[in-house]
Amino acid sequence: MIASAFAQTDADSPVFSPAFRRELEVLFQWRRDVRRFETTKVPERLVAQVIRAAASAPSVGLSEPWRFVRVGSVAARKAVVANFEDANALALAAQRRDKREHYASLKLAGLRDAPIQLAVFCDEATQQGSGLGVGTMPEMRRYSVVCAVMQMWLAARARGLGIGWVSILDPNRIARDLAVSNDWSLVAYLCLGYPVEEHIDPELARAGWQDRQSLPDRVLHR
Amino acid sequence: MIASAFAQTDADSPVFSPAFRRELEVLFQWRRDVRRFETTKVPERLVAQVIRAAASAPSVGLSEPWRFVRVGSVAARKAVVANFEDANALALAAQRRDKREHYASLKLAGLRDAPIQLAVFCDEATQQGSGLGVGTMPEMRRYSVVCAVMQMWLAARARGLGIGWVSILDPNRIARDLAVSNDWSLVAYLCLGYPVEEHIDPELARAGWQDRQSLPDRVLHR
Repeated sequence: MIASAFAQTDADSPVFSPAFRRELEVLFQWRRDVRRFETTKVPERLVAQVIRAAASAPSVGLSEPWRFVRVGSVAARKAVVANFEDANALALAAQRRDKREHYASLKLAGLRDAPIQLAVFCDEATQQGSGLGVGTMPEMRRYSVVCAVMQMWLAARARGLGIGWVSILDPNRIARDLAVSNDWSLVAYLCLGYPVEEHIDPELARAGWQDRQSLPDRVLHR
Repeated sequence: MIASAFAQTDADSPVFSPAFRRELEVLFQWRRDVRRFETTKVPERLVAQVIRAAASAPSVGLSEPWRFVRVGSVAARKAVVANFEDANALALAAQRRDKREHYASLKLAGLRDAPIQLAVFCDEATQQGSGLGVGTMPEMRRYSVVCAVMQMWLAARARGLGIGWVSILDPNRIARDLAVSNDWSLVAYLCLGYPVEEHIDPELARAGWQDRQSLPDRVLHR
C-alpha cells in the first residue's frame, strides 16, 4: 500500500507523487494555531507519534537540542496558568486602547482545556554536535527546536489533532517552575488536543485582528 | 483525484488518511540538510511553490515577518562566500584538534554550486500583528521565520529538491552586504537545488561527526 504511494529510485530514495504534494499543501493550509480544545483524551500512541515526528527534524550539527517536558500535574499546570495571567495582564496594558477589548476576547490560551501540554526547551549547553554551526549563530540551537515544533504541528494536524503555541508567558519563570536545568531555555509552550472546530482561515483573521498579506512584496532580489 | 486522497467532513475540513501520514513520515525521514548540489537549473515555478509553502507557515500574531531575498548576482554571491570563508576559519580555530581535519572535510557549504540561494530575514519592526504574542518573547518573530523555513524544506524535498541551511556566516554582515533594512535580522541562509544524491542518514552521521541519540531520554514529566 505504501509502495504504491511513491516510486522508488536508486537506494530506495522515495519520489513523492503530485497527489502527495497536493495533499501536503492542504495540510499546510489547514494547519491552525488552535486555541479551543475538546477535553477528550488524546491516545498516548498519538502523543508518542507527534513527539517522534518532532525529533526527526533537522538540527544544527545534529545536536538535537530539543527537550520535551510533559506538563501534567495540577501544580505545574497551575503555575503555567498563573504565568500566563500575569504576562497577559502586561500585554493588555501594552496594547492600544482600541485593540484592547478585542485582544482580551481572543481567548488566547487553551491552557485550561488542552489535555496534553508540552513545554519544549532548548539545551543550550549540549555537547552533542561538538558546536558545529553555532559559532557565529548560537541561536541555531533554538532554531533547531523550532524546526521540531513545526514538524510536530504538521504531524498532529495530519492526525486530526490541533496544536496551539502559547507565547504570552515569561519563559524563565516556566523553566524555574518546571525545575529544569539552568542550561535549558523555553522555546515553545504547546497545547495539544482535538480542536473544537476545524477552519482554514487563521483564528486571528476570523477575529478581525490581522489578515494575511500579499507574498510578492516579501521577495527581493540581490 | 485529490478528493479520493482524503475524506471531507463538515465545512470541507480534510481528514488525512493513514497512507498520507505514512508518506509524510517518509518525507520527514528523507528530508536532508543537503551540501552537495547539481548545478542544474531549478524551474522558477518550483521556486515560487516552495516560497509559497514557506509563507503558509504559522506566525506570531499573524505577523508574517518573513522576508525572502533571492541572492543571484555575482557580487552578492561573492560576498556570501567571503563571509563563509571568514566564519569558517574562525570555526576551525575553535574546534578541538582531533575534530579539525574532519570538520574541514565536511564540505559544509553548497554556496558555490547551489543554483538558488535565499537569505531569509525577520522583519523585527513589522507592525503587522500589532505586537500580539511578542511582549515576553520577542524571539517569536524569528521563530515564525524558522517555521516558514521548515515548511519550505519539506515542500522542496517533496519536489525532489534539496535545501542546505548554512549557519557558518556572520549574520549582520550578510544583512549589510545585501543592503536590506536595518530592522531585518538574518534567520537562515538557504541553498536550494537538486541534490547530488539522496540518502536517509544525516550527512553528519555519514561523516562520523555525530549520530542521532535516543529519544526517550529527551522526554520529562512534570
